[in-house]
Amino acid sequence: MPTYIPELAEISKEKYGIHILDIDKNEFSIGDTQERFSVQSISKVLTLSMALSVIGKNVWERIDVEPSGDPFNQLSLLEQENGIPRNPLINAGAIVIADILVSELKDPKREFLEFVRTLADDPTINYDEKVALSEKRTGYKNYAAANLLKSYGNLKNNVIEVLDFYFYQCSLSMNCAQLCDTFYLFINEGKCKNDNKHLDKGLIKRINALMLTCGFYDEAGEFAFRVGLPGKSGVGGGIVALLPNKFCVTTWSPGLNIKGNSTRGMAALEKLTSESELSIF
Amino acid sequence: MPTYIPELAEISKEKYGIHILDIDKNEFSIGDTQERFSVQSISKVLTLSMALSVIGKNVWERIDVEPSGDPFNQLSLLEQENGIPRNPLINAGAIVIADILVSELKDPKREFLEFVRTLADDPTINYDEKVALSEKRTGYKNYAAANLLKSYGNLKNNVIEVLDFYFYQCSLSMNCAQLCDTFYLFINEGKCKNDNKHLDKGLIKRINALMLTCGFYDEAGEFAFRVGLPGKSGVGGGIVALLPNKFCVTTWSPGLNIKGNSTRGMAALEKLTSESELSIF
Amino acid sequence: MPTYIPELAEISKEKYGIHILDIDKNEFSIGDTQERFSVQSISKVLTLSMALSVIGKNVWERIDVEPSGDPFNQLSLLEQENGIPRNPLINAGAIVIADILVSELKDPKREFLEFVRTLADDPTINYDEKVALSEKRTGYKNYAAANLLKSYGNLKNNVIEVLDFYFYQCSLSMNCAQLCDTFYLFINEGKCKNDNKHLDKGLIKRINALMLTCGFYDEAGEFAFRVGLPGKSGVGGGIVALLPNKFCVTTWSPGLNIKGNSTRGMAALEKLTSESELSIF
Amino acid sequence: MPTYIPELAEISKEKYGIHILDIDKNEFSIGDTQERFSVQSISKVLTLSMALSVIGKNVWERIDVEPSGDPFNQLSLLEQENGIPRNPLINAGAIVIADILVSELKDPKREFLEFVRTLADDPTINYDEKVALSEKRTGYKNYAAANLLKSYGNLKNNVIEVLDFYFYQCSLSMNCAQLCDTFYLFINEGKCKNDNKHLDKGLIKRINALMLTCGFYDEAGEFAFRVGLPGKSGVGGGIVALLPNKFCVTTWSPGLNIKGNSTRGMAALEKLTSESELSIF
Repeated sequence: MPTYIPELAEISKEKYGIHILDIDKNEFSIGDTQERFSVQSISKVLTLSMALSVIGKNVWERIDVEPSGDPFNQLSLLEQENGIPRNPLINAGAIVIADILVSELKDPKREFLEFVRTLADDPTINYDEKVALSEKRTGYKNYAAANLLKSYGNLKNNVIEVLDFYFYQCSLSMNCAQLCDTFYLFINEGKCKNDNKHLDKGLIKRINALMLTCGFYDEAGEFAFRVGLPGKSGVGGGIVALLPNKFCVTTWSPGLNIKGNSTRGMAALEKLTSESELSIF
Repeated sequence: MPTYIPELAEISKEKYGIHILDIDKNEFSIGDTQERFSVQSISKVLTLSMALSVIGKNVWERIDVEPSGDPFNQLSLLEQENGIPRNPLINAGAIVIADILVSELKDPKREFLEFVRTLADDPTINYDEKVALSEKRTGYKNYAAANLLKSYGNLKNNVIEVLDFYFYQCSLSMNCAQLCDTFYLFINEGKCKNDNKHLDKGLIKRINALMLTCGFYDEAGEFAFRVGLPGKSGVGGGIVALLPNKFCVTTWSPGLNIKGNSTRGMAALEKLTSESELSIF
Repeated sequence: MPTYIPELAEISKEKYGIHILDIDKNEFSIGDTQERFSVQSISKVLTLSMALSVIGKNVWERIDVEPSGDPFNQLSLLEQENGIPRNPLINAGAIVIADILVSELKDPKREFLEFVRTLADDPTINYDEKVALSEKRTGYKNYAAANLLKSYGNLKNNVIEVLDFYFYQCSLSMNCAQLCDTFYLFINEGKCKNDNKHLDKGLIKRINALMLTCGFYDEAGEFAFRVGLPGKSGVGGGIVALLPNKFCVTTWSPGLNIKGNSTRGMAALEKLTSESELSIF
Repeated sequence: MPTYIPELAEISKEKYGIHILDIDKNEFSIGDTQERFSVQSISKVLTLSMALSVIGKNVWERIDVEPSGDPFNQLSLLEQENGIPRNPLINAGAIVIADILVSELKDPKREFLEFVRTLADDPTINYDEKVALSEKRTGYKNYAAANLLKSYGNLKNNVIEVLDFYFYQCSLSMNCAQLCDTFYLFINEGKCKNDNKHLDKGLIKRINALMLTCGFYDEAGEFAFRVGLPGKSGVGGGIVALLPNKFCVTTWSPGLNIKGNSTRGMAALEKLTSESELSIF
């Protein structure tokens, strides 16, 4: 459990849920799949999607698409590479994405929440303000990253304003079923559960590729190797993974391994793809 | 063109070929697909496959499975990580694989060549001794890597002996069609073109995952993002890429970009998967 | 000239002064030695001295004494070494020193200014508020460093409060003659010009050693090699150097080399020690 | 004790000697100062001196003069800095110096030995062939460094030939008294004990500066800080330190700290300079 977010540390490590939503909208659910938790870094896929739908490929002028090969919070790379984050799914990259949304949207917090609710077709999804405020008080590494980006000219807005949005985005509170609903468009060529088109097929392919190569910090290779699905984890203990045109699966189990990924979630997904012989490879 | 292998520098940059072999063994071919070239790093997938078929998962005690996020010849990471190469598809990792084969096989050069010929069902495949000897004379970074591995105890045999095998493996000379034949088992769940089973399905999945996350040096993310297929490139200008259960495609074009991958090959493959909308994502 | 401090960029690069004060209090002066400039990083020697006089060797529990071998603003090292700055003369280290003074003093800005005025026996020395406020607005890398230190628990006070003091300390405005007066105690075994003892001889030796190994960012070796004196430079174009028991010398010339040290200052000091054959070596 | 040189591991850690030679050629000696040991890296100061006397400042086109801030055997820096070693007193730098001597001398091993014997005025000084051959068999990191230098074009001769000389140079066997005799010229402006001039005063200053900033691997700052003298250590347990125009001191005690420097030697020298209040600072 991340000690730097006290609110998350209070949640029982015994919680465990797995939820599957297939392309035909059938659902399979075991365990604590209706309890909401902090999605944390899983939200980075959603802000990236929103940024791509708003400013398109201009995003890539400010962020690269390579795996970092380094822990999720290292600033060294950022310094070596002159303020261009390695990819949009590590903290520094997601902060640049947040900056883009703060620039482009009138009311970023409200509009991003609206975007997620629409994808999931669920107006009850919300931020967990207590978590957001806690990170706002103590998220020093994120303040360091944002100031470093600012020093390289790769943050257009005020550090405090961008991080305020960023901490809210991370505090998004959802359950396994809602996450499957939200990520349905990534298995369905850009169309969400109620058949509205949100992103075009080419973008979906690219976002899925990013989840595969960069979705698990410096354990991305391991996840691809063992599980073989694009996915994204969060320090709240959630993992979303998916097989395009087939199914989306979400696990929740708050015990994290040393790399910051849910131990039981990874094990469950490995078992699922090994026994079913279903993977992108 | 890599200036460190003079023999490769002599080959015309105008050479260009693309060859596709689908799961039903249909072939499509354009350009210089019958001319043999030095497969170089593409051979790393084949030695890895052979090592896995010989000693199984013990391989992973000596090599990791994470993308390196660094150029293909950097020793820094090796030093930081105490002699455990990041993955088997960068030079240091492939040298450890070569060491395993030198330990396990009686006549590694002959037996590996036999293995490749069997996969491709083609007894004419051979090493290019001139290329092998040229690298043996001037491949100083590989000597540096092997000695560094040795200093960490992660090379069991003599440096000269292991690199002799390694340089021969890299000098493997094949054309686009032969490469598709050889890699057919990676789209066919481990069975090669004449239906013999060589690797089990689980291993194929894992090798394909490694090609996706690590097959293009520090451009792996870019290739996944733009092309969306597992694959492997070599500084001889070749690229093999594949869509499991669908097709294998090989391109050859000796002009390399700054990261060491074939410029026209990558462009062709991006076009292929974008227009056909066929990718693993 | 550092573009990140606009006020400094306005100063003519033609300014040039050199001032020598010997152990017998004789003075030699050429050029613009009465014009005040921003001492910037030279102040780090003075805050370190004050911190050592206040909490003694406890300082070394939070900072190391090794040369960094890296540009003055790199955060990478800080991350690699878990928040322990390499030495007190790079930014991260000086920010920890500032934190110590903020903890230990009632009114750090006033008391530090008093300390400097006493050493120099000159009540006219002052901060340049315009420079301090400018850095406060735009010193993003220092905000990044302070937040990173905070994330490792190596900053006890509030980031804003510590940096407020730090930016004031750097804005200290002095001329060459005043700097020689202030640094006189480093050539006189801890006694300042009016013979008051401020630091004991052992501490003076250690601070002089730090100036030698760490006083010129990643050009410390070059300065020791060419000039052969302990010293400290600042991006305002000033350099202080000294030969214990013999003399202290200050140069001011705002044109900086790529490493952030005054080009003409370094050349003048090299000439001085080469022709006089006076150095610590 | 360095486990990578088995011959050194056999020497009793109880051995302890300290020898002082002052500018007036008075000697003070305690303990095992007549027993010869492997000088190892201390020899780097002597090969550097010989190279400077042969090709002068051209040396600096191939080596830098900055402290490395890193352990003595790291190749990472070499790679980052394109094959230019940080300084001549780390392994990579000393290998380039060895390469220079191999290029410039007819019989490098014999001529270098002659050079050392002349400085010390002692024809009994010799290599320890057993140690040299042992390092030749197992010094893999040095083979790695030399090959990496070769790949960057910063090694003109054959790797094996250069390292053969390098391993012999390191195997130089001397006692504390002989080391003081040999290093006498560094306290006497370039004139050795029998008053012959070997290096000019400017060079002596620069070599002394290099010993101060780079003579103790990544503990150079610590040694300057605690001891305050230029010096050089070796993994054989020896340390030479000196105060120009005053004295040269040698300690020998084979127990090494984690950074590869003699624990008791450093403690003795710190005590010596603290109690005598004699240092360059």
